[in-house]
This record gives sequence, C-alpha cells and structure tokens, in this order.
Amino acid sequence: MAGPHRVVIIGGGFGGLSAALKLKRAPVQVTLIDRCNYHLFQPLLYQVATGALSPANIASPLRNILKKQKNTRVLLAEATRIDAANKRVILSDGSVEYDTLIVSTGASHQYFGHEAWEQFAPGLKTIEDATDMRRRILLAFEAAEREQDPEKLRAWMTFVIVGGGPTGVELAGALGEIANDTLRRDFRVIDPSKAQIILVEGADRVLPVYPQPLSAAARRMLERLGVTVRTGALVTDIQKESVTLREGDRTETIPTRTVLWAAGVLGSPLGRMLSAETGATLDNAGRVIVEPELTVPGHPEIFVIGDLANFSHQTGKPLPGVAQPAIQEGQYVAETIQRRLRGEKIPPFRYRDKGNLATIGRAAAVADLNWLRLSGWPAWLMWIFIHLVYIIEFQNRMLVLVQWAWFYFSYDRSARLITGKNPLPLDL
Amino acid sequence: MAGPHRVVIIGGGFGGLSAALKLKRAPVQVTLIDRCNYHLFQPLLYQVATGALSPANIASPLRNILKKQKNTRVLLAEATRIDAANKRVILSDGSVEYDTLIVSTGASHQYFGHEAWEQFAPGLKTIEDATDMRRRILLAFEAAEREQDPEKLRAWMTFVIVGGGPTGVELAGALGEIANDTLRRDFRVIDPSKAQIILVEGADRVLPVYPQPLSAAARRMLERLGVTVRTGALVTDIQKESVTLREGDRTETIPTRTVLWAAGVLGSPLGRMLSAETGATLDNAGRVIVEPELTVPGHPEIFVIGDLANFSHQTGKPLPGVAQPAIQEGQYVAETIQRRLRGEKIPPFRYRDKGNLATIGRAAAVADLNWLRLSGWPAWLMWIFIHLVYIIEFQNRMLVLVQWAWFYFSYDRSARLITGKNPLPLDL
Repeated sequence: MAGPHRVVIIGGGFGGLSAALKLKRAPVQVTLIDRCNYHLFQPLLYQVATGALSPANIASPLRNILKKQKNTRVLLAEATRIDAANKRVILSDGSVEYDTLIVSTGASHQYFGHEAWEQFAPGLKTIEDATDMRRRILLAFEAAEREQDPEKLRAWMTFVIVGGGPTGVELAGALGEIANDTLRRDFRVIDPSKAQIILVEGADRVLPVYPQPLSAAARRMLERLGVTVRTGALVTDIQKESVTLREGDRTETIPTRTVLWAAGVLGSPLGRMLSAETGATLDNAGRVIVEPELTVPGHPEIFVIGDLANFSHQTGKPLPGVAQPAIQEGQYVAETIQRRLRGEKIPPFRYRDKGNLATIGRAAAVADLNWLRLSGWPAWLMWIFIHLVYIIEFQNRMLVLVQWAWFYFSYDRSARLITGKNPLPLDL
Repeated sequence: MAGPHRVVIIGGGFGGLSAALKLKRAPVQVTLIDRCNYHLFQPLLYQVATGALSPANIASPLRNILKKQKNTRVLLAEATRIDAANKRVILSDGSVEYDTLIVSTGASHQYFGHEAWEQFAPGLKTIEDATDMRRRILLAFEAAEREQDPEKLRAWMTFVIVGGGPTGVELAGALGEIANDTLRRDFRVIDPSKAQIILVEGADRVLPVYPQPLSAAARRMLERLGVTVRTGALVTDIQKESVTLREGDRTETIPTRTVLWAAGVLGSPLGRMLSAETGATLDNAGRVIVEPELTVPGHPEIFVIGDLANFSHQTGKPLPGVAQPAIQEGQYVAETIQRRLRGEKIPPFRYRDKGNLATIGRAAAVADLNWLRLSGWPAWLMWIFIHLVYIIEFQNRMLVLVQWAWFYFSYDRSARLITGKNPLPLDL
C-alpha cells in the first residue's frame, strides 16, 4: 500500500514557506529543504546591510515556524540536482523522493557577463551579503578617517549604488542617512556628511516599474538626503578603485572604493539543472518559463514558484521579483496539490497585485496601491505597518519596532558592527 | 611649546573604555586604539553563543559611546608592538606617540600546550567565536537529525564543556535549556532532550572561586537541567570525534562532536611584546606583573590593566578576570594621570570587591556579595538587574530586556541562526 502523497519543497523563502504552511492540514507528507536553517525576510535585508537591524531580527528558524506542523519535516541540506525521471531530489549528502516537487530556490544577482565585478561590487541576497556590505560601508569611513592623500580620501568617501530599483533606492536612502545623521559626530578628521552617494540607473528614472509621478517623488526624496541620482547611465567597468559610467556618448570614471550592486537578477542554478533535466525553457535571467498552473512543461508534478519562475500568462511579462507573487504562488500550489488529490479541476494561477512600496529613509516612502498613490509620510507609515505585519515572529516584530522607534528619534543605527574576517590593516 | 599630554589606550574593553570615559574632562588628548569598532559586553557573550541574543545587542560602536567626548579620538587599528624607548605604539599601518600609555588588550584562551585542540574545542572571547560556537551547537542537532548510525548519533548528541568557571557553568546551563525546552518540538527523528551535556572541571567543585555552598547550589541547578557535572576530571586529549578524561587513575574516552572550551586564560600577545621591550615579568598565564600603581616596573608612564594585568599586591593572588577589576583599574589610572599632571601624590590601587554572580539558566543563579549569599530566584533577579544596568546603550538595554522577557515566557531563543561559511554537506 502506498504511503501518503509526498510533497518536497526546495527553498524556504516566501514561496516555499507559504506553500508548506498552506499544506498544514492536507493529507500529505511535506519535506522542506533549505541550505539555511532560517526563513529570511529579504525586504528588510538592506536594513541589516546599513546597520539598522540585526540579522536575527529578520531571520526566523524554519524549524521554529513549522514545529507544530506535524506533517512537515525540515531538512538542512543542499539540493544539487533534480532527477525528474525517478522523481528524486539529489542532495549533497543523500536524496529524497517526491510525488510532487515545488522548486522555490529564488534568484541571485548577475553581472551580465562581467563576473569580475562581483569582488568590487557585492550584491545583497543573503545574511552574509548583508554583513559583508555593512563591513565595507563602515570600513570605508574608517579608512577615510586615517587617509592622508586627498584623492584617495575622496575615493573612500564616494559610494556608488548600481541599480535604481527598490533595493538600490532603499540602500541609497539609508546611506544618505548614515552619512548625514548617524555618523555625524563620530569622526574627528572627516565630516561624514561630505560623503558623495551616487545612485546609477540605466533607465530614465528610478523605480521604473512604478508610475512616473512616484519615480519623480522618490528622486526628490533621495536628493534631499544628498544622493546624486544618475539616470540613463550605464556601468561599463568596475575596478578596485573606480567605476566607469556611460551616459549617451559621454564616458566618465568615478574614483570610489565602495560599489554596491543592486542591478541584475539571475535565477538560482537549480533552474538550469531543471532545464537540462526536463527540457524546460529558461528566459535570459535564468528563470524557468512555467505553464499557467506554474508547472514545468511535460511535468505536472513539478512546480516552480517565486523569483525562479517566469509566469507571463497574465500580463505578458514576468511578475515582479518581490514577496507578494511568491506568497500567492506558494498558496496556489498548495491548493492545487490538494485539489488534485480530491480529483478536482484546477484553474490557472491568477496574481492579485496589491501594489508596490519602497522606503527612501526616515519618514519618506512611495506607495502605489493601484487605486491610490502615496508618497512621503503617509506612504512611510503604511510601509512600517505592512512590514511589521508580515514579519513572521511576534518577538521579532517587537524587536524591530523598538529599533525603528529608537532610530526615528535618535538617528542611531546600533547594529553597525564590523564583523567577520579581520579587516586590518586598513587598505589605505 | 608642548601640546596637551597625550594618553594612548590600547583596547576598548571594560578597562580601556572606563579609563577613556573617566578622562572626559581631563586636560589631555586621548587616543583609543582597538581592532574592533565596538565595545563588547563580554559577560553576555555566552548568550550570543547559545542563540538568546544578537551580537549587536552586546556590542556598542566605540565611536558612538565617545562621540561627545571632544578630547578623544578612536582609531580602528591593530597595535603590533610597543616602542617604549621612543614612546610610540607601532600599528600594522602606522604609529602613534604617547606620553602615557594604557595597555588593556585583555586575554584569550589557552590550551596549555595542546594548540591542536583549538580546532575541535573553540573558546569564547569574540563575537566571531560566539557565532562560530552557535553554528557548531545548532549543526550538531541538525546532523543528529540526519544521522543513521546510532553510535555516530550519540556523538552528535553529546556536548562537552571544559572548565567549570562562570563561562563553563553558564554555557552548560544554556545548553541544558536549549536541549530541554527551546528545541523541544523542532525535530522529527531525534529528541533533543536526550542530549548529553557534560561539564568537566579539574577542581573538586564548579565555580571554585565562590564559597563552597554556592558551588554546591550551582551544581544542583545544573543537574536539574540535565547537565552531568564531572569534577576532579582532567582533559588529556581532544580529537575530532572524542574527548578523553582522566579521573584519578581512571581514563575514559567520550565520543562527542561538540567540545566547548571554557578553561585556560592567556594574556594577549601585546603582553609578551611589552615584556620583551621593557623586561617586565609575565606570570604563567602571560599576564604582566604590575606595580602597586598598575605600572610596568621602570616605566611609570606605561599602565597595564584588566585581564592582561597580574595585580597581586592586595590579596597575594591576581584579581579575577571579570569586568569589575578592569573597570576599577581603568578609573584608577585615569585619576592617577590627572593627579600626576597636578603634581599630587598617588596612592596605590585598591580593588573593592563587590561580589560575584553567575547564572545557570532561567530563574537560576548564584550570587556572592560577600555580606550576602544568594542562590536561585533572588540571585537571578539580581543578575538581570545588574547586567541591564551595566549594558552601555539605552537601546540595547531595551532590546535585551524584550528578548529576556520573551525567552522567560516562551523558552524561545530567536537568534539561533547558522551563519558564516556554508556548512553543507553535513559531516555525517
């Protein structure tokens, strides 16, 4: 006799976790596989990178979230391959069989063929990325305080953020606040507010997926924080001590020691494995082009959701790489699995767009709720409310609230620690 | 004309920082040098290692603490040598001249000639040590959940803590709570409460510097948490998968994958440099034997304080390596410097012993206030109160309080993240 239907989920991000939670009462056996032992609240990762929150405030142990869910086990493991013919996930230390597979391993950043840029311009996808970015930002100010050569000093005091989407805008806004407020009286030689923060975007405006008036509002708020916004500018080279931009036919090399990458997205390597195994088509960002039911063509038992999926059946273009589509997809797949077990008909996935939100620092944000557009204070209050509601653990909600309240009144970012591999001597 | 008197402090721990703060209104120019950009509240480091607090909760940026102190600058740098003849501190990237030098670089752990043990039995002195220890503890349970071989499983579920001083007792108590309460429903195969936690101490009781009845109380509290206390036991070998103990003529090898080192103390390398440079005598723990005024013999302009100093003039033995002596020494030195500038007479240093405190988990502690001895609940309340008062930043005081309160009611340790170098595949 066959045991219960086995659902294997790879990836405990918004998509995979919401699928697992939605299967709580289903007559299935769920295995959630992740390389990390926690679910990461990625929308606030830039706040870790800029010293406002601690990693644990935005990371909840997966076992803790799922501990009361009896039909679910968590496996700390790395999935290296999908053996679709034998319905097995190959791990770096074993394998797991499935009846239904949900692949939700997300995306990383890409450098469009310039992989050498990564060492100088790190991206922001993991806790380790965030603490590394935090170290680079803080060390740049430390090195500036010690630097004698005025040209080198200028490079230490120049920060370039590549990419004017939500992550780039939020990083630039936070950096503006660090320079103007947080570090104001910390140094004796340099004046942190003299730091130059440059946000580079290839399109003609920041937040290109937002309505035009909100992009303009975001730009104004950034400029008020001292950020130089360079739209229509393409990065053509990144070296250890400079970044080169092209605007039209004009080329310019900016001396800088800190470049932060918030540009290209690339689907996780498991998408390419899946494509090789099943013949599924990938788009040019390495995302799997899925059927209207979020399945891989020819494999109704394999779902791909979240940032790794390219679902274009609704609007003609892929859904944005944010939390909402991933959550809705995870819930849809969990319901689809239960409907199939009951022999019911399955409607295609429909995304309900609840809108977009981005902060540009203290008391400044833009919100596009489709029926309502907000900027400034009201958008910022909404942003705080929504993010607090979505943070999973009650304790972290309290901790984040205390830190935001403190930050609001004092401008202080208490988590500005330089940790990790010993960074001394400073590279002056 | 000479500028103001230059005081250089190496090390921003309890000793160095309290000296710097006490010099706030003195007519001197202070330079505080540290390898880290933060002051670390070391007494709570074990709570980071056991997932109860985040690193930033117990680390405050030195620049932030000192930002209003106009006569003080902070240098993120590593002191490699002291050039006492020319009154200069040599950094890995430059040098700094002093009129008065305060060396407060603390101590690390030592393995008494068995340096090979370090890789299997890490100590706990830095933030990086704490997150590494946290990773090892959590990974052991993850590996146990996956392990098929019953003997190997036993080794993953066995935790050995070497050293029955305050750090060892606090680690063992926290591990007992993790196994019994925090992880209770997290796993599907193993039962974390079956974990074996062994505290090894060479003396005939734990907390040997405490009065005998408090040692006995601590032992009872540990045993209530499921900790096996092995006193009069010496570690004779540590390997990747075992630790060997000798009790009298009996030798025993315990299979274990997690050994935590809370035993020997070794003064920082700067003590040895100072000894080579000035002829100062070191004790067998590498501490500098100081004069009654905490100076190096023959060098009244060089003070050594905190864990790096061996001050035995008061009781005939060195002061304990905890926060109180370091703080009092730092304040004494700051006053001494000001008295000298005024040409006043300088009394020798006197330590006022305010007592000792150690926790053994939730609602359990021992306190020896000299005039009063407490154990259990009252000692624990006192421990909480005193630690909250001594945590430097108001914000961190609130954050720690929220987390302790949450922990008290839920047994949940939310900061149990496995971070750092990718730990997969599990070493089964």
